[in-house]
Amino acid sequence: MKVLVAGGAGFIGSHLIDALLSDGNEVVCIDNFFIGTEDNIRHLQGNPHFTFYKSDLSHLDELDSIFAKERFEYVFHLAANSDIQASAREPMIEYQNTYSTTFCILECMRRYQVKNLFFASTSAVYGEQMGQEVSEGTASLSPISYYGGAKLGSEAIISAFAYMNDLQVLIFRFPNVIGPRLTHGVIFDFVKMLREDPTQLTILGDGEQRKPYMHVFDLVGAIMKFRIVPKGVTIYNVGVETQTSVTRIAHIVCEKMNLSNIPFHYTGGRGGWKGDVPVFAYNLDKIHAAGWKASMSSDEAVASTVEQVIGCKR
Amino acid sequence: MKVLVAGGAGFIGSHLIDALLSDGNEVVCIDNFFIGTEDNIRHLQGNPHFTFYKSDLSHLDELDSIFAKERFEYVFHLAANSDIQASAREPMIEYQNTYSTTFCILECMRRYQVKNLFFASTSAVYGEQMGQEVSEGTASLSPISYYGGAKLGSEAIISAFAYMNDLQVLIFRFPNVIGPRLTHGVIFDFVKMLREDPTQLTILGDGEQRKPYMHVFDLVGAIMKFRIVPKGVTIYNVGVETQTSVTRIAHIVCEKMNLSNIPFHYTGGRGGWKGDVPVFAYNLDKIHAAGWKASMSSDEAVASTVEQVIGCKR
Repeated sequence: MKVLVAGGAGFIGSHLIDALLSDGNEVVCIDNFFIGTEDNIRHLQGNPHFTFYKSDLSHLDELDSIFAKERFEYVFHLAANSDIQASAREPMIEYQNTYSTTFCILECMRRYQVKNLFFASTSAVYGEQMGQEVSEGTASLSPISYYGGAKLGSEAIISAFAYMNDLQVLIFRFPNVIGPRLTHGVIFDFVKMLREDPTQLTILGDGEQRKPYMHVFDLVGAIMKFRIVPKGVTIYNVGVETQTSVTRIAHIVCEKMNLSNIPFHYTGGRGGWKGDVPVFAYNLDKIHAAGWKASMSSDEAVASTVEQVIGCKR
Repeated sequence: MKVLVAGGAGFIGSHLIDALLSDGNEVVCIDNFFIGTEDNIRHLQGNPHFTFYKSDLSHLDELDSIFAKERFEYVFHLAANSDIQASAREPMIEYQNTYSTTFCILECMRRYQVKNLFFASTSAVYGEQMGQEVSEGTASLSPISYYGGAKLGSEAIISAFAYMNDLQVLIFRFPNVIGPRLTHGVIFDFVKMLREDPTQLTILGDGEQRKPYMHVFDLVGAIMKFRIVPKGVTIYNVGVETQTSVTRIAHIVCEKMNLSNIPFHYTGGRGGWKGDVPVFAYNLDKIHAAGWKASMSSDEAVASTVEQVIGCKR
């Protein structure tokens, strides 16, 4: 099957390409290298089943010409800004890279009659739920970050395109995903800070922010397993049942870096930064009932990623 | 108070401007005349409390320069495509005129610290609910039109901007609004068809599509009444309890045009066109409890509008 991976040079997208190629597909990747990198897809150079276009997915005319040339049967849409703190300072990043990419992809799917879509959504569509477990049917969808707002907006316009054009759409809402090729986030920050000053560590908030961290291999496995869906929009929360606090991450990083008795300085307050959701619990009943569970716990995913981050930079 | 009415040359916007001027405000109107018209605001020419900019609200730089010059205290955002059938053929209309206008307005509000927003949303955010009454807390928001999708996307990004910038936002979700200055829709279509051929009338669908039609004066009254809200996003369904079927509208139009015994030809099927929601019922408990009710029933609003449509064209 010829498939498009939009945002395929990104962290998650590049792993998905590896899985799709292993599965025997012809893979076309479009990426503007805004967050994705050449490094992430360098190992695919020369693979006859892989084609790369450096292009901005929010430029409709460029995208149209690629859709006209390649005849996709499936679009995996993972193109988005993924740096929530960056867009907190400059919201138009989400307009351009998260929402506009979605609209342009949908419009090209409509024009070229591509019927199958996977969309990478996020736990951030739920907003602050005050520690309540959130399931797919939660009534209140009130994003508090521009990222979550643009992703929920993407889901909304996908709903319309799906109905109007008889699409089969799989939407995964997932929390923090970590693993090889990760480029930013708290693990990176801690490793970097401890390399610069191994005598102490400053932690944003009170360190009690707890989130489920999911390994990218588990996520990609779930995409591959569930990618064929009936007509309409199928939404799953995807994640792990366990959570890891920021303080626990700091301990794991110190341990893996062989640093002991490092004093932690907390900046205080509930959240790390405005738009961050400090406590988050996911109801995963739907995807568990469908026969899938993550293979790694949140702590295991963190530990594995910390090792890779430390290893890569040595 | 100096206020911006975005899309103020449109059907609803122009009536809102009249009310805001009567209330003693300084009103700035921005409109690109995509759907709005000079006719709708001609009566305001020369009013020292009224300023007009012909500008596209999706052009951020233009909008920024207006925000820099005028110092708004309140933004009423009614700029959007309102022709759902037009965007069903060309979805990018909604990207440009409905979603992008919202994002650019919010970004300018952020830059210039404007804290108060009214947003005109729609019953179309709910999608097809199979005749079930929809209230503001309905879990399933599954728009089936590009218009509904772009409006729900607007609500989603408003949620994020409201949280990040401490905005006070009032969102009204309203169904079909009719009254003076209306420019399109079923009443217009019937009057036009009967003027061209007063011996018969073709009706899309089976004529049983029933919707609540609300008079624009009632809607504007509700905006004026509820426009001051606490921090955060306050959402109301706004409408009338009664509904009018398409066949009933045809009867009212014939009666007002003094045409009797006109045969109606039905094209058949449930909905008039794809993306139309054929049966729609609104739960209005929240706004009724807050002390507001529409003064005109759906049939009364239709009858009043039919008279005006016929009168204006004579």
